[in-house]
Amino acid sequence: MSKQMEASPETVRLSLDEVRTLAREVLAGYGLSDAHTAAVAETLVAGERDGCTSHGVYRLLVAARSVKTGRVKKDAVPTVSEPAPALVRVDGDGGFAQLAFEMGRPLLIEKARRNGIAALAVNNCVHFAALWPEVEAIASEGLVAFAFTANHAWVAPAGGTRPLLGTNPIAFGWPREGQEPFVFDFATSAVARGEIELHRRTGKAIPETWGIDAEGHPATDAAAVLDGGAMLPFGGHKGSALSLMVELIAGPLIGDLTSRESIAADGGAGGSPLGGELILAIDPAGFLGKSAPENLAKAEAIFEEILGQGARLPSQRRYAARRKSTEEGVAVPKALYDDLVKLRVARTN
Amino acid sequence: MSKQMEASPETVRLSLDEVRTLAREVLAGYGLSDAHTAAVAETLVAGERDGCTSHGVYRLLVAARSVKTGRVKKDAVPTVSEPAPALVRVDGDGGFAQLAFEMGRPLLIEKARRNGIAALAVNNCVHFAALWPEVEAIASEGLVAFAFTANHAWVAPAGGTRPLLGTNPIAFGWPREGQEPFVFDFATSAVARGEIELHRRTGKAIPETWGIDAEGHPATDAAAVLDGGAMLPFGGHKGSALSLMVELIAGPLIGDLTSRESIAADGGAGGSPLGGELILAIDPAGFLGKSAPENLAKAEAIFEEILGQGARLPSQRRYAARRKSTEEGVAVPKALYDDLVKLRVARTN
Repeated sequence: MSKQMEASPETVRLSLDEVRTLAREVLAGYGLSDAHTAAVAETLVAGERDGCTSHGVYRLLVAARSVKTGRVKKDAVPTVSEPAPALVRVDGDGGFAQLAFEMGRPLLIEKARRNGIAALAVNNCVHFAALWPEVEAIASEGLVAFAFTANHAWVAPAGGTRPLLGTNPIAFGWPREGQEPFVFDFATSAVARGEIELHRRTGKAIPETWGIDAEGHPATDAAAVLDGGAMLPFGGHKGSALSLMVELIAGPLIGDLTSRESIAADGGAGGSPLGGELILAIDPAGFLGKSAPENLAKAEAIFEEILGQGARLPSQRRYAARRKSTEEGVAVPKALYDDLVKLRVARTN
Repeated sequence: MSKQMEASPETVRLSLDEVRTLAREVLAGYGLSDAHTAAVAETLVAGERDGCTSHGVYRLLVAARSVKTGRVKKDAVPTVSEPAPALVRVDGDGGFAQLAFEMGRPLLIEKARRNGIAALAVNNCVHFAALWPEVEAIASEGLVAFAFTANHAWVAPAGGTRPLLGTNPIAFGWPREGQEPFVFDFATSAVARGEIELHRRTGKAIPETWGIDAEGHPATDAAAVLDGGAMLPFGGHKGSALSLMVELIAGPLIGDLTSRESIAADGGAGGSPLGGELILAIDPAGFLGKSAPENLAKAEAIFEEILGQGARLPSQRRYAARRKSTEEGVAVPKALYDDLVKLRVARTN
């Protein structure tokens, strides 16, 4: 804990380096291999740094449990292959997805630059993190990036009655000269599952658009959605179509699990989803050649107009949090910090 | 008009061949080149055939006006180029998009098969048709297809106050063994502009989620949205992010007009949008190789489950209409038919 920083009574202020060290010590303590430990820790630091607390050190509890229960292979060795000139595949060997993605990324970028467009399939991995760090990493290299992943079958199709689809996020990254990429990343479900769980815990009613009960009727009781019911996609039949698209392209198209297969493999243990992820990269220089600067300037004019209207860019809040936390560190709830320290102590003693 | 078919008093029953002939005669009568006439007529037949009446022969009025007013180049000669190993570009030369797409499609498919993934940019075209015929055509060849196009700046970003984005549709096609592809195609606006126009004509209030007035407030008056206000994206900030994604990848990424540039170029004439379109194709054999059949069977299981829940597949209604109209022809409103016949007579005399 940084001595020079003030922390409120209920939070502990940590520098990002301290977050990194804590995450690494906990994961390594559970026997996760060095390469996985480093990759997973960076994701947790990124989440905490950008103010996405649900994907920050809180997820260290989730990741540690996956290691402890053997859901994830501690010493998985991802292997990279090139099934076609513009395709990269990384078989994650049952490990966490982060290292697999890291290993595939350079080749994806190289292939996108060479061919104009390329795709990376990350297979056979445990997923617990958000997709934005991945599209941001690709967009930071000057490419346009898309990422899709299926997860656990929690969501019913619009007009349906039972869980079939995952919360199936879509992420997009767009490179910006001299500044952080434009990035968005959202679940195609109406809300995150954690949001509904929070309502259950606090006994609050949920809007009817979030989920259905076991009979397929719109539910305002969070428990009815979570136990035997189903979540709903965002945006009605359009969001449902997109969720189905993600299910198809991040499952069958890349030879990996569907959301139903992932949750079946979990067998009620409540573990992180198993499966694949599809990432696309397009090099703006491919279509644009020398006209890239003037065309990318048009994109900047669009961003400016959005801000000028008083609307927000999806990544704006994260980048603001990043600037602040890089300077000042982050405030982690004391109870969470204590739990994490206990995890570390438990394993290093 | 087919003698053997019954038509209600207000409609005229036409076989699909008769629709095709009518469309061709009208377009050729206005001097549209043979190649464009054939390509555009097929789109109109497809719309009418599939029960998408707003994209059927009704659009012939729109297309004919574009030809008549010189908004579209009658004898445009699209040129195909290969800016990178996995990229195809077709410069539409200011003509209708259909022929440009047709000319780029074989090379897109060939490149997707060779490289695993490929992209086609259709530039410098007039667009008035839906995207589903294009993704269906690619998926019919066994590939997964995505299509995106920007159009006229009619839509405000979520949280914004002024039009900036087009209705920016997203289309997706997935190949199915032995049957029509799974296809969806929807605007990222809450509804089609035509739907709001219909409410204005009939004086009906619109839901607050469809648009905002000139002050940026949610509007229930259709006229307030159409005159000085703005349409809204579907699905709140998520749909807005997708609309922005389409704007970026179908505009600046391929060196073509943004929706604001398209509507500025129109100068209030109410013509069809000018600009580009991005189409992606992925060959399932790329990642799957010999395991393609078993993985595509998993997709079939997902489709079956959706139907088994009583939900609908997006393309289902269109294919049902297609089967019916292929057998029985289509019923075109008498008034519309008369207008179209007048267009034909006016030019051929």
